[in-house]
Amino acid sequence: MAVITPALGRRLPRELISAAPRRFTALPKHPGCRPAQHSRRLHTFQPLYRVTAESPLPIPSKEARTRQRYSSRRTGSAAASLIASVGLFSLFAGLFSLFEPDTAPRDNPSNTSPDDRDPELPRFRLSDVRKHDAKSDRPWITYEDKVYDITDWIPAHPGGDVILRAAGGSIDAYWDIFSIHKSPHVYEILAHYLIGYVDVADLVDGRPLPEQIEDPFNDDPPRDPRLITMTEKPRNAETPLEELTESFITPKELFYVRNHMWVPKVDDPDRYTLTVELLDGSTKEYTLDDLKTKFKPVKITAALQCSGNRRKDMTTHAQKKTNGLQWNLGAISNAVWEGVRLADVLADAGFPLEQARAGDTEARHVQFAGGESYAASIPIGPALDHRGDVLLVYAMNGAPLPPDHGFPLRALVPGHVAARSVKWLKRVVVSDEESQSQWQQKDYKLFGPNVTDPDWSQAPAIQEMPITSAITTVKLGDWAPLLPSASETKERETATKTSEPRGRRASIGGFAYSGGGRAIIRVDVSLDNGTTWDQAELLDDCAVPGPGQESPCNGHKSWAWRRWRYEGVIPLHKKEERREDGKRCSTLFVKATDEAYNAQPEGYDAIWNVRGNLANAWHRVRVCSECENNK
Amino acid sequence: MAVITPALGRRLPRELISAAPRRFTALPKHPGCRPAQHSRRLHTFQPLYRVTAESPLPIPSKEARTRQRYSSRRTGSAAASLIASVGLFSLFAGLFSLFEPDTAPRDNPSNTSPDDRDPELPRFRLSDVRKHDAKSDRPWITYEDKVYDITDWIPAHPGGDVILRAAGGSIDAYWDIFSIHKSPHVYEILAHYLIGYVDVADLVDGRPLPEQIEDPFNDDPPRDPRLITMTEKPRNAETPLEELTESFITPKELFYVRNHMWVPKVDDPDRYTLTVELLDGSTKEYTLDDLKTKFKPVKITAALQCSGNRRKDMTTHAQKKTNGLQWNLGAISNAVWEGVRLADVLADAGFPLEQARAGDTEARHVQFAGGESYAASIPIGPALDHRGDVLLVYAMNGAPLPPDHGFPLRALVPGHVAARSVKWLKRVVVSDEESQSQWQQKDYKLFGPNVTDPDWSQAPAIQEMPITSAITTVKLGDWAPLLPSASETKERETATKTSEPRGRRASIGGFAYSGGGRAIIRVDVSLDNGTTWDQAELLDDCAVPGPGQESPCNGHKSWAWRRWRYEGVIPLHKKEERREDGKRCSTLFVKATDEAYNAQPEGYDAIWNVRGNLANAWHRVRVCSECENNK
Repeated sequence: MAVITPALGRRLPRELISAAPRRFTALPKHPGCRPAQHSRRLHTFQPLYRVTAESPLPIPSKEARTRQRYSSRRTGSAAASLIASVGLFSLFAGLFSLFEPDTAPRDNPSNTSPDDRDPELPRFRLSDVRKHDAKSDRPWITYEDKVYDITDWIPAHPGGDVILRAAGGSIDAYWDIFSIHKSPHVYEILAHYLIGYVDVADLVDGRPLPEQIEDPFNDDPPRDPRLITMTEKPRNAETPLEELTESFITPKELFYVRNHMWVPKVDDPDRYTLTVELLDGSTKEYTLDDLKTKFKPVKITAALQCSGNRRKDMTTHAQKKTNGLQWNLGAISNAVWEGVRLADVLADAGFPLEQARAGDTEARHVQFAGGESYAASIPIGPALDHRGDVLLVYAMNGAPLPPDHGFPLRALVPGHVAARSVKWLKRVVVSDEESQSQWQQKDYKLFGPNVTDPDWSQAPAIQEMPITSAITTVKLGDWAPLLPSASETKERETATKTSEPRGRRASIGGFAYSGGGRAIIRVDVSLDNGTTWDQAELLDDCAVPGPGQESPCNGHKSWAWRRWRYEGVIPLHKKEERREDGKRCSTLFVKATDEAYNAQPEGYDAIWNVRGNLANAWHRVRVCSECENNK
Repeated sequence: MAVITPALGRRLPRELISAAPRRFTALPKHPGCRPAQHSRRLHTFQPLYRVTAESPLPIPSKEARTRQRYSSRRTGSAAASLIASVGLFSLFAGLFSLFEPDTAPRDNPSNTSPDDRDPELPRFRLSDVRKHDAKSDRPWITYEDKVYDITDWIPAHPGGDVILRAAGGSIDAYWDIFSIHKSPHVYEILAHYLIGYVDVADLVDGRPLPEQIEDPFNDDPPRDPRLITMTEKPRNAETPLEELTESFITPKELFYVRNHMWVPKVDDPDRYTLTVELLDGSTKEYTLDDLKTKFKPVKITAALQCSGNRRKDMTTHAQKKTNGLQWNLGAISNAVWEGVRLADVLADAGFPLEQARAGDTEARHVQFAGGESYAASIPIGPALDHRGDVLLVYAMNGAPLPPDHGFPLRALVPGHVAARSVKWLKRVVVSDEESQSQWQQKDYKLFGPNVTDPDWSQAPAIQEMPITSAITTVKLGDWAPLLPSASETKERETATKTSEPRGRRASIGGFAYSGGGRAIIRVDVSLDNGTTWDQAELLDDCAVPGPGQESPCNGHKSWAWRRWRYEGVIPLHKKEERREDGKRCSTLFVKATDEAYNAQPEGYDAIWNVRGNLANAWHRVRVCSECENNK
């Protein structure tokens, strides 16, 4: 019988089946229906070469047929189609969570000490395995204590060549990242390539020592200690609150980091190439030098923001769990990016820009693939629109891109969720379809507040961002009478009747941002729990600083964030007070409006979504103070 | 002394002053400081020819200088610069309310029966006045019982040639529309051109009979009686609720009407011309035939929506007055528009499209002026963007434009507030500045919920619209058990414990729309006061109806509205019930999400604005029902 993982609904690909022995022992299915005697073996592997009578041949599945078609397509294109393969990998991969890497201890280590493993298969030293690296004719990998020759699997691997990243070493660490691999279906595929076991001389408690297993994150760069680390591997870190809106342009070392995997190592940037593939499959390669010398350099000042920024806020206020890193406010930063126009490069590669702009080609999307196997796409519209300012970027704030931000080359899609500004860019593909990656087809989508188990196909990928704002600093000053501006007339009248309404002077500030290049036109602030509102001062960060100088804002639309500040007195007198632990408190609110007069939603209950994306309700900060004169 | 109306802060233009006698009696100023003896004469006119000692010469003002400069510009351009003049007119005009035409009875009629008017000035029969129409060498007008020769004033009239609309007749009705004219400042100007009085033979109670006064709306076309009239003159009428989402394409006779003035009469469409003016002042004229034959015809399916749609909803729920027509839901409609691309016409007129797209010209705005003197502008970006689909339109739903919708030519700026899709289009001007019209500089703007007396210069004109949605139909059916989909699991559990929760089956429907071509991706519906949500079905109106047929949706972006429907059971059992007049009630909510994942604000308190613009909070409808079996 075919081994099916119901969660994925996919079967063993046809090629594998024909390569494998005709009959084999049924593997455990999913945990819900696996026989008790298999329970400890779910995560361990035995060769499947033993023929049994009760296992009929698996039926080639739709999945296998799809991959076959894809394989023949690959044959037609000389260069390896990284994007397409990454795309299919993700389709194949189904759900996996990079937000919460699987760090749970393995509960079923195979106990191979003393060596009771299949005596018919050979033992290999790890030093032998290392010789079979990515450059060898027959690449090997290890998984736990087993050795696999993956030579024949590589061309069929849905994830493409990325599997070679582990060649000559252990795949364990990668599967900790791509946790979807930890399924019976994948274990079964792997089992076909088992060639032996790691020699007991290299094992401790049946496993290679951790120091023997290559850490995929070994090449990750050092980071500024001021960044607030959310996860170390992959690296996710937010800009600290106190630095967040300290400057209009975020220093590059304080720019928030959102990596889905490791940081690809670039040994020789001069030999780094970008491949551009057009609809007809034709490709053209560009070195960094080509990009820098053949095209007009362009600067764009743009904020990038993670779709999960303020997720913690949503979780807290909706009082419902959200799935993903619990970012506070700092998964947004603003920089000056320098590169060349994607449209210029596409035109150079032979893409008919004007025809495409008129809608007369099949081009609908531009797919980007990064060196670490991340991939995503954007609609063709902004990619071709001169005013869309989509760039291939090699510099940030006047210096080469830092490794964490895509060195040596990344996409910049301003006004869109940062997940489309693919880092370590290796391949650009003009296509009639979206990227099929996990990050395009899942994860970066939203559903209604009632949907807990989304059908991902039912929502479009996040592209342009909605409006948001946040309070990043609150500085409390002296006690003072309430300022009239903080209240409406009626409120003031009431207030003056209650002798001397007082509060504390406060200086607050923060950012506002909207996607699609929509300028922030107004920021409303409330110091009194949303009862009354006033307008914040929008900082004039785009002003030309002096004669002969340029505005720090580059680009055709308002791609940067807008900083704001507000001075007022937070009412903490009797009427407004709410005592907490002997303190008087008030809640500050901020909400922004963009040029399309889009407003932020008031609360989270109605925009809550299971992935906690686009948490853009009014931002609220509770401020408490000891009572004046301790009264 | 110079007569200054402090509200406007402007003085008598220099030309007027030099043309007028050197000294004259001071006219009453504004009501706040006018001498009591003048109070009854504020709205009547006396010739100012009597020289007095105490009236020094007025000092030419900045206003006069501005106008002079403008006049010399006009001289440089052969064709009358309608847009510029309309612009200046509006600057000059300051505040006037077309939303609430001044229909208050005149409180100071000059009592001229028997004829105690200045005996030194001649009397004219209205039949004499009629000879001095727009085509005569010396156009005259009457105001109340006075006759004016406006020949010398026409070139200086800030409103431009539109004043000729009244030539040969009375200006009274126009001033009821352009109520700003009813100021001492304007009365004073007019007084300089007094040449006599209407003969008593044509007066009744000191005024010409109403039937003798030309009604500016005489040429307005007949309308479909199903339209819900908000004001008759100018015509403002909304599509009735029962027809609103009955069809995807609104029949042209049911398309909502928003006229700011009268419908200009077009005697001979074959001689109708559009003037296109470029940055250098050069102009080119196009007949309708030119447009239809020289350029590629383009169809765009787009909704147009008034910025005041749902204003009544805002007024009701914010419980605060808003200034403007209290539209319900029907100031939105959807049609197929046919015309030619504005960019194509601009290019033909000599405008360097590619240079402008790259930002290398001074072009920042495209101004539109209509034949009735309405004017507005849009930023250059969407005007030049092929995907912006900005058209010059001559047909609607496959037939020539109806008179109410701009016959013979209008602008279509999809995704933008309808106020930019200028009707009866006469002139297009590429400019470095916005239209200076009332409708660009005021009215169509928003301010914070705290702002009751806005500084109009502090907000940008509404262009792209934010997201909105509405329930247009609710059909109640039988009593039934609650459908699981209407409640979340927890709610269901609670519900099943309270024996047989029941409600009434309901079929509801409506529209959702977002500006900027942002597609509607989701419509959330709540049948239980916003406690739980479910997703509505989005109608597939853009589907290709059959083989060889075309989608009814034309254009590069999602310019049309999206219709939706939802079937459910409105909970009216004990837990949810709220009895009103013996009935059980529940409130239905709808809210939409667009492709930039913009959401509607929950309520109106925080988006209330004094003009009641862009009322796009969740739409809510209270549904009540007799209890089941009268229990």
